[in-house]
Amino acid sequence: MTNKKEIFAGIIIIGNEILSGRTQDTNTSTLSIWLNSLGIKVQEVRTIPDIEKTIISTVNELRKKYDYIFTSGGIGPTHDDITASSISKAFNLKYGPHEEAMSILEKYYKPGEFNEGRQKMAWMPTVANLILNPTSGAPGFNVENVYCLPGVPSILKSMIGGISHKLIGGNPILSHTINLRTVESEIAESLSNVQMNNKSVEIGSYPFFRAGKLGVAIVLRGDQQSKIDKCNTEIIKFVKEKNIEIVEKD
Amino acid sequence: MTNKKEIFAGIIIIGNEILSGRTQDTNTSTLSIWLNSLGIKVQEVRTIPDIEKTIISTVNELRKKYDYIFTSGGIGPTHDDITASSISKAFNLKYGPHEEAMSILEKYYKPGEFNEGRQKMAWMPTVANLILNPTSGAPGFNVENVYCLPGVPSILKSMIGGISHKLIGGNPILSHTINLRTVESEIAESLSNVQMNNKSVEIGSYPFFRAGKLGVAIVLRGDQQSKIDKCNTEIIKFVKEKNIEIVEKD
Repeated sequence: MTNKKEIFAGIIIIGNEILSGRTQDTNTSTLSIWLNSLGIKVQEVRTIPDIEKTIISTVNELRKKYDYIFTSGGIGPTHDDITASSISKAFNLKYGPHEEAMSILEKYYKPGEFNEGRQKMAWMPTVANLILNPTSGAPGFNVENVYCLPGVPSILKSMIGGISHKLIGGNPILSHTINLRTVESEIAESLSNVQMNNKSVEIGSYPFFRAGKLGVAIVLRGDQQSKIDKCNTEIIKFVKEKNIEIVEKD
Repeated sequence: MTNKKEIFAGIIIIGNEILSGRTQDTNTSTLSIWLNSLGIKVQEVRTIPDIEKTIISTVNELRKKYDYIFTSGGIGPTHDDITASSISKAFNLKYGPHEEAMSILEKYYKPGEFNEGRQKMAWMPTVANLILNPTSGAPGFNVENVYCLPGVPSILKSMIGGISHKLIGGNPILSHTINLRTVESEIAESLSNVQMNNKSVEIGSYPFFRAGKLGVAIVLRGDQQSKIDKCNTEIIKFVKEKNIEIVEKD
């Protein structure tokens, strides 16, 4: 297998509702799983408030740091939706009605229903590429390596498929999980040895508590199946020596 | 009501399992709701990988920026738990067995069970203040304005109560939600006017889709009940004028 360059992404979750704890973010997990499948590794997530200067500075810092940036939230029609105007400022681009977006929304709504609030959803950097929205009409948009998506999880989910072909990924990130009926301290030393022998595989250890029983999930991640398999064999070896039960995946 | 200074916090979620999408973070929401109740506003959340230099630079950047920092994750016994050693380096403090933590864990485990893996959980900045763990023994710790908590949500939840009295908060952040059977674009302009008239109240607008019906939750947040009430009255006024149905809270 050729060694492609590693490709990294950053996610910016924009919204006071996440910072206040009112809403549980689920978009990070949706985006990460999708990006992993394309061979793109999420390296950082920032959750920030609906404050223009924070959005601008965060976007400008991260877009230089990672291959791709995905933002979620703040592209609706209300006063607290300031992502599109902030992104325009971050890139020094004209913010105004996007011709193609206006045309999409005009067709989406019944005659007379395309009011001022709805028109706002077509305002963005006028030169942006659109990200089509099969759920509710209003598109997201893309400027250079920054992709702006809505905050509503079901709508975001319906939109990401449409941009997969635009992203250049690395080798898909493969993973394998071993669930053990044990506690972390019983396996810490052995696991550490396996990690030292297998530096190209990332070994994570995550305690769980399910159906009244403690366990540990060992997650192996890497871009080469043969290396994950080797790591797996070494772990299974010490697990058997220690008489630790392997439990079914959930 | 006196005008206390606003108090801000940052949260750092440490763990590859969140960035890979394997695990859904719920600690942000737990910490934010608890901090809000103490009058502390979460201004930023960063989710970062288990990489020492990233942990050090993130902690050192954010601890100067906010009144309090809370970290979650990476304080267990395995090789990927590097928060305690990284925090020691961030503060230039000796990393080693913490006397009080050793004594707590020695008592927690049965004789002979306090193995090397478990002893690692007592390693931290030797001068740290402990954060007691009523669930599983192993304590968290605090250095200056940085509070380090575990990643397992149920354990984190059980530990935060014990540090509430150590934090100096501002006025509690009050909130009021109005759920409307409408779509955002119908109320965007009116809501924007109310926001302009009520700058000390943060008005958020969040579309929802429940039981097959669309709606919008309007969330008013601020530290003065009288100002939230005034804002609420102005919103209810335009809602009635527009014949929009107010629906029950969920």
